[in-house]
Amino acid sequence: MTRTVLESKTKTVVMGFDEPFCVIGERINPTGRKKLAAELEAGDFSTVEKDALEQVACGAMVLDVNAGVVYNSNPNPNETEPPLMGKMIELVQSQVDIPLCIDSSVPGALERGLELAHGRPLLNSVTGEEERLEAILPLVKKYNVPVVAISNDDTGISEDPDVRFGVAKKIVERAADFGIPPEDIVVDPLVMPVGAMGSAAQQVFRLVRRLRDELGVNTTCGASNISFGLPHRHGINAAFLPMAIGAGMTSAIMNPLRPAEMEAIRAANFLMNHDDNGASWISFSRVLDAVEGGESFAEASKAQAAAGSGRGRRRARAR
Amino acid sequence: MTRTVLESKTKTVVMGFDEPFCVIGERINPTGRKKLAAELEAGDFSTVEKDALEQVACGAMVLDVNAGVVYNSNPNPNETEPPLMGKMIELVQSQVDIPLCIDSSVPGALERGLELAHGRPLLNSVTGEEERLEAILPLVKKYNVPVVAISNDDTGISEDPDVRFGVAKKIVERAADFGIPPEDIVVDPLVMPVGAMGSAAQQVFRLVRRLRDELGVNTTCGASNISFGLPHRHGINAAFLPMAIGAGMTSAIMNPLRPAEMEAIRAANFLMNHDDNGASWISFSRVLDAVEGGESFAEASKAQAAAGSGRGRRRARAR
Repeated sequence: MTRTVLESKTKTVVMGFDEPFCVIGERINPTGRKKLAAELEAGDFSTVEKDALEQVACGAMVLDVNAGVVYNSNPNPNETEPPLMGKMIELVQSQVDIPLCIDSSVPGALERGLELAHGRPLLNSVTGEEERLEAILPLVKKYNVPVVAISNDDTGISEDPDVRFGVAKKIVERAADFGIPPEDIVVDPLVMPVGAMGSAAQQVFRLVRRLRDELGVNTTCGASNISFGLPHRHGINAAFLPMAIGAGMTSAIMNPLRPAEMEAIRAANFLMNHDDNGASWISFSRVLDAVEGGESFAEASKAQAAAGSGRGRRRARAR
Repeated sequence: MTRTVLESKTKTVVMGFDEPFCVIGERINPTGRKKLAAELEAGDFSTVEKDALEQVACGAMVLDVNAGVVYNSNPNPNETEPPLMGKMIELVQSQVDIPLCIDSSVPGALERGLELAHGRPLLNSVTGEEERLEAILPLVKKYNVPVVAISNDDTGISEDPDVRFGVAKKIVERAADFGIPPEDIVVDPLVMPVGAMGSAAQQVFRLVRRLRDELGVNTTCGASNISFGLPHRHGINAAFLPMAIGAGMTSAIMNPLRPAEMEAIRAANFLMNHDDNGASWISFSRVLDAVEGGESFAEASKAQAAAGSGRGRRRARAR
């Protein structure tokens, strides 16, 4: 059975076919977040701190950390990203104790993250591009960490799912040459928007099954891409995630602050028989009660997390 | 490819692996609805009329009609159900033009429904019980209609999915002896509550795949049973339905007035590539807009249905 083991300072998260779906919080990423990018360049990490705490309270099991800021003062990410990644990793680890996903296109930033991350982080990412394989796989081997493998290569992203499967297979084989086992490769089969390609979700479901059955690997995806450009996209995401989970998808890089998606995942965990006696669902249903009562999802999740750990039990009982 | 063809006076609905999920509206059923039961005994059909119109507006493609009232004045359903079924079928057909699902445990009521239903209704139901097979299959053959086959037999409902599969197989074989083809058998694999049996949903998904791959039959279920006894059960249902659809389930007998479930099904249709260019989703998203604006789901659905058919276009544009 394929088990991808991730660790923080004291916590272990296992990604696998018999485990609850692994939610990797995507919020700590300045890409497309101008305000956060400006804050980071100014040395203000308050949003990073808030994002770390809120995502964990809402159910993130791993936190993605991306330091991809293009500084106005220095446009060379090879110089700016590694120290920023270091600062962000240290800050996040001072706030929360869950495994991290070190996310960068800059190898130096990945290595800085690997040096500083506690436990066994996930590396994000390698692709089938030759240059990337040569740069990343030695890091994966040196630090003995799992890695996200994105199924595009030097020819780009293929619309043909068989080609994307072939790229994933190549990455798994190249990793094996480095002595990296398949359970440390988490393949992203690439999710296209269903609004642009009607077969997009079907491609993902079939690919996930093949990746599981033929390569024995865990999988992840940028789940919200499925609904790009569509109205009421959270409704699409909230159906896509259970269907992907049913097909064998074992994790997603996503926004855990979205209640519709998190409700769908928690229900899917129960339906996959990965929630003993529905204990997690019943606990989560109290968050839904509070949201119906007017609280924000993040606030309600924080209160429930505190109640669950015993610290806020009195408050929770008083509801 | 298995195609189960249902017809009303002028409309055809096809249930199949390459068709949108077939929503069978369950509301016209006095079981557990004391007020409706009392109305029916008193000859008041206003709720039946309202339920017919609302369910169709909300997206029901077939309407289940059940006349299972135990009259205070006459406790013998063999006497009371057939004429009541007749009245209800005629009334529903005077209001809406979609195929019906004639639902009774009383063979005389089924036959009365078959005599009066326009087109090609669905018969609900046969089981693997000997007496029931002998009573129902001749009706299915005589009227050339499809039938729901529930996978329990004289030994009851088995918790073992292999036994339930065996019962379904037996019904398909017995039907074949009557000259009834597999595409006219719609198997209900029986959904147990996941709160009582953690493997309940997994059983259904595996059974649906086997029923499709090995027997080539369409499937249906009483979907909401999965969440029986649980808090926030609509969240469970709204994840269960897309997962079941992904596994190959082709219909459900359910309440189409529930927005969470209908949103999940419409999203799943899109993700199954059964919604060309997302046209249905985009139309449905206007209903969701109206619901967010404070309208009830039924009212918003009726307004959108009117707008879609051209009659209410001006109103829809004025929003």
